[in-house]
Amino acid sequence: MATLVVHEQNPSPVEDAEILRKACKGWGTDEKTIISVLGHRNAYQRKLIRQAYEELFQEDFIKQLESELSGEFEKAVYRWILDPADRDAVLANVALKSTTPDFRLLIEIACVHSPDELLAVKRAYFSRYKRSLEEDVASQTRGDLRKLLFALTSTYKYDGKEINKNLAALEAQVLHELIKEEAFSHEEVIRILGTRSKAQLVATFNCFKDQQNISITKSVVGDPDDAFLEALRVATRCIYAPQKYFAKVLRNAINKLGTDEEALTRVIVTRAEKDLKDIKQLYYKRTSVSLDHAVANDTSGNYQALLLTLLGSEDH
Amino acid sequence: MATLVVHEQNPSPVEDAEILRKACKGWGTDEKTIISVLGHRNAYQRKLIRQAYEELFQEDFIKQLESELSGEFEKAVYRWILDPADRDAVLANVALKSTTPDFRLLIEIACVHSPDELLAVKRAYFSRYKRSLEEDVASQTRGDLRKLLFALTSTYKYDGKEINKNLAALEAQVLHELIKEEAFSHEEVIRILGTRSKAQLVATFNCFKDQQNISITKSVVGDPDDAFLEALRVATRCIYAPQKYFAKVLRNAINKLGTDEEALTRVIVTRAEKDLKDIKQLYYKRTSVSLDHAVANDTSGNYQALLLTLLGSEDH
Repeated sequence: MATLVVHEQNPSPVEDAEILRKACKGWGTDEKTIISVLGHRNAYQRKLIRQAYEELFQEDFIKQLESELSGEFEKAVYRWILDPADRDAVLANVALKSTTPDFRLLIEIACVHSPDELLAVKRAYFSRYKRSLEEDVASQTRGDLRKLLFALTSTYKYDGKEINKNLAALEAQVLHELIKEEAFSHEEVIRILGTRSKAQLVATFNCFKDQQNISITKSVVGDPDDAFLEALRVATRCIYAPQKYFAKVLRNAINKLGTDEEALTRVIVTRAEKDLKDIKQLYYKRTSVSLDHAVANDTSGNYQALLLTLLGSEDH
Repeated sequence: MATLVVHEQNPSPVEDAEILRKACKGWGTDEKTIISVLGHRNAYQRKLIRQAYEELFQEDFIKQLESELSGEFEKAVYRWILDPADRDAVLANVALKSTTPDFRLLIEIACVHSPDELLAVKRAYFSRYKRSLEEDVASQTRGDLRKLLFALTSTYKYDGKEINKNLAALEAQVLHELIKEEAFSHEEVIRILGTRSKAQLVATFNCFKDQQNISITKSVVGDPDDAFLEALRVATRCIYAPQKYFAKVLRNAINKLGTDEEALTRVIVTRAEKDLKDIKQLYYKRTSVSLDHAVANDTSGNYQALLLTLLGSEDH
């Protein structure tokens, strides 16, 4: 379940645009108003506000915001205001262009999204960058990591619930044999993870656990700094238990000496309209601290206020 | 340009369905009528006829046809009557399940189709087989051939016209170096062919020709029975000059001792609504024999009559 709180009665997109214009153009920017409006509108409503703003004031609302805001708050607002597919395209491009690329985001997009959501990200990527997501993934990576990331991001997977139980048992066995031999990057591992449907892979991972008494993720052990192994673990987690995976990303982002704002913002912004409530519960179950409390402790100012609003924090 | 002749004035789909019902249910099947109706209707009209037939008679028109017709004629009618994307899904599945798979069709679908046409084939594949095209490609192939076919069929390529000339020159050089070293299945060859857009690849192949005075296709030489090399040549031809490629497939299908009806039907049925007129011109240019004449010489009966109708043969 989502955490985003959208009120039943809202101003019209034109009224919202006018309120936001005033908040941007007044004596100093009124961030509170920006948060109170945008932090309670869903993706479709935000889109209508952007359109209304552009029609009314002949200015791009996003550019306007960029010129008014700064720091982590600006980044979070920018990510929140974009269409989800477009936001993922931007985040993927940032990840790919970085000198020390963080591929977790790409794996999240490929493995947590439905095939049609992934397709929407690819289309948004075309329209922004005039290239395909796959060609940038393939040209920015090398070797085994390329093979895995390319397979995960390129395949248009079957989205149905039909699974083949015998195949699941067979491929669980294949995966176990290869993992036991530490042939983690064997083409069969990549083929199975990269092309089988989510439902089929969940069945396969269940068989793996039944057969071996250990989850596939925990079986992938080796050099903790090996980027391929880490990508493999992230992929299996994102397929098998995405909420648990995101709760873990949040724990790591918050537990660090110095918060990892990049990851914190990413998870809250991308999951607030989807399953952040479930992620919050898992976070609490594991840490005995509410996520709202942890975020409030680790952040401050407008950035904190926006995150708490998206977290649906009632006492905020 | 297409060869299919669709008259301006046609009976309604309901009238067509009634005419076809009579042709199927009369004293012996009236194949001439079936050809004269279906051979002059475009994909959308054929779809409406199928729907009207089912509504009127509570029977699946395709099953009805299968029970009435036989041999190469039946196969050709069956392929012609299906929606283009659905037909490609069926043909791809037949190719993948065969004990001696012919991968040319898969490469044609991946490299000649637009990205959105390929996507439509993938969706049709889901709905027929409850699996993705990519997972069947990956599980039915091995080694280098798998890598190439998987990359070609999985990527959702950028479909725009924008190209990067410097990149084309650079990657033409990369391709030349690898081909010179006979590293045909090097991951960079597969990355470039599998992920770059059609427009970008055409630019790259043009640079290759300018730099080396020989086309990339002609540079891929080696064991003529090597399936990977053949797939690589088919891919470059399908990307660079699809009509010329299809004209060659037809020459091979007709010139054989014993016609290759599989290939002959495939090219005529799949291109009749697209560019078969151009393919006919290229065929004539190369052989000094009209394709209609060659087909008339090599085939007979209702099969011949249907192919000639789809070829827009006027004297038929």
